[in-house]
Amino acid sequence: MQPLSVTLGDRSYPVHIGAGLLDDATIYAQYVASRSVAVITNNVVAPLYLERVQRALEQAGGRVVPVLIEDGERAKAWPTLDRVIDALLAARCGRDSVIVALGGGVVGDLAGFAAAVYQRGIALIQVPTTLLAQVDSSVGGKTAINHARGKNMVGAFHQPLAVIADVATLESLPDRELRAGIAEVIKHGFILDLQFVGWLEAHIGDLLARDRAALSHAVRRSCELKAQVVAADERETGRRAILNFGHTFGHAIEAGVGYGEWLHGEAVATGMVMATELSVRAGTLRREDADRVKALVARAGLPIRGPDLAIDKYLELMQVDKKTVGGKVRFILLDGLGRATLRGDLDARLIRESIAAVAQ
Amino acid sequence: MQPLSVTLGDRSYPVHIGAGLLDDATIYAQYVASRSVAVITNNVVAPLYLERVQRALEQAGGRVVPVLIEDGERAKAWPTLDRVIDALLAARCGRDSVIVALGGGVVGDLAGFAAAVYQRGIALIQVPTTLLAQVDSSVGGKTAINHARGKNMVGAFHQPLAVIADVATLESLPDRELRAGIAEVIKHGFILDLQFVGWLEAHIGDLLARDRAALSHAVRRSCELKAQVVAADERETGRRAILNFGHTFGHAIEAGVGYGEWLHGEAVATGMVMATELSVRAGTLRREDADRVKALVARAGLPIRGPDLAIDKYLELMQVDKKTVGGKVRFILLDGLGRATLRGDLDARLIRESIAAVAQ
Repeated sequence: MQPLSVTLGDRSYPVHIGAGLLDDATIYAQYVASRSVAVITNNVVAPLYLERVQRALEQAGGRVVPVLIEDGERAKAWPTLDRVIDALLAARCGRDSVIVALGGGVVGDLAGFAAAVYQRGIALIQVPTTLLAQVDSSVGGKTAINHARGKNMVGAFHQPLAVIADVATLESLPDRELRAGIAEVIKHGFILDLQFVGWLEAHIGDLLARDRAALSHAVRRSCELKAQVVAADERETGRRAILNFGHTFGHAIEAGVGYGEWLHGEAVATGMVMATELSVRAGTLRREDADRVKALVARAGLPIRGPDLAIDKYLELMQVDKKTVGGKVRFILLDGLGRATLRGDLDARLIRESIAAVAQ
Repeated sequence: MQPLSVTLGDRSYPVHIGAGLLDDATIYAQYVASRSVAVITNNVVAPLYLERVQRALEQAGGRVVPVLIEDGERAKAWPTLDRVIDALLAARCGRDSVIVALGGGVVGDLAGFAAAVYQRGIALIQVPTTLLAQVDSSVGGKTAINHARGKNMVGAFHQPLAVIADVATLESLPDRELRAGIAEVIKHGFILDLQFVGWLEAHIGDLLARDRAALSHAVRRSCELKAQVVAADERETGRRAILNFGHTFGHAIEAGVGYGEWLHGEAVATGMVMATELSVRAGTLRREDADRVKALVARAGLPIRGPDLAIDKYLELMQVDKKTVGGKVRFILLDGLGRATLRGDLDARLIRESIAAVAQ
């Protein structure tokens, strides 16, 4: 099938989606021939796919340098980045080297940021192996590491040369991670495509059963929707912020319970329920549409109740969110199902009530 | 006087050069009105200029957050960057905040990199207070921190909104730092402008005596020459590399003796003498022109002898230099005085001989 295209002028790139693409040397060839290729992956993904990817890259003419990092959100931090930089320098990777990010969102964000800053920026290929990474984090160029005071606080926009999403890798994904990825898939429906919400309501069971055709469609439609938004606003100066629907609340949940306790997709799922509550209270969404949101989140096996943190704690954590403008937190609301809007003028009381309705 | 312009499409920016610009609120106004402005400076520069800059920024409508870092090359590393990020988060600086880098090359590189990666990139104003920073590091968008294995190995291209070079600040500069800055000034002559070399030979005494008119001319001509090169090749995919004349050897010297022992400009000065030797041996420069290079470096009070490291040590340190392509080190040679050329095909014997001629 034809790859999708993320259209960004001279930074445009293809997103290849399909089963069995992971070790297709013909896709890699144009990017890696006679270059050093650092494959950054973790100790969970490596036993499953590293050998196949390495063989394909070598067949494509690359000199492969595997770099293993630990698994989990905790790896998205400076000490791991420092070790990656160190490994690249030790292997004498130069500015013409390529980083291949083989793994989920953490690997993609960390390896992507390494590519953004190594010797002031080198080339990157994203090879996402989780649903979350395939439908969200690998597309759009956002890279980052976490800081003690907040998630993704240190990062860069660094578009890849290509994204290679092999849906066959989703078969090895733990159930909990599959569901966390579905959170971002349904997010794209909620904010951008009412028809896709209908499709998801009809096929959520197929996705959970890992039906390959259903997964391919969901990944493709998600990437299409996201690519349109990114193409219109690469560096999130405006409309791209709608992709953060549920994320202001979600980041507070992740930070509040401690990074890595809740999966990102789980926190976003509950965050979407909170943002949906807020939409109803702000008068932009009907209660029956909010019920559809909550029902789909629940059917995906995702949490519809927030962790029992003090509401002031939620508010405090949300203040340092990147979406703060001039000290005021902006929220993404649903403006009807399948449409999103940015609002910076919300009454703090509505926000407190919305958290309380979901968290306690 | 009219500011210079660095022409980079929608990333173009002015370089203001003159005496007394540091606290000119009218220059700052368009960039900082009703924004948070983090002024990053060190404990040597702060007592001299922080209050004046802070007052001007406040007059221009900014909310000022001063962030002090330690002095010296050692500050150009992750622990300092982490503290800066922490201070910005603690002060609730958002994506619309501005970083002002007030100081020399270390402050500019570190604060510039902080601006490049804080919340995936915020605005930056460079206010260089050393000659080195005014003629070189503040213009062109290069930012970085060092890594144990090499200088500037982690960084980004991040163009400022504006550069404000107040030549009056050069009056407080220690002699050794003034001379280190002159190294980069004469570099611009050697690689780009024979006529400027002649001017420097005639006025080197005026520069060392801190004649304000001579300094203004030298800063302006240096920035003009650099801006032309940067405009043609922002991300150093080709010709911009000529600005690294003397730097491949220079970085090896800095790393070999330990960062901070030799000033960057001192190492570059000796590096230029080595690269000039190499140019003669490679047949691209006449011996009498090499003698002019060496004589001007010496008259500027800069070292023309390298530190007594083993030649193999030099070579080893140069291998990890960023200018390595496909594992091969490229050198910038003088192709006659006032012209530079990039060469990747040099015989290792010539390189060894050139180091030996200067280092021992």
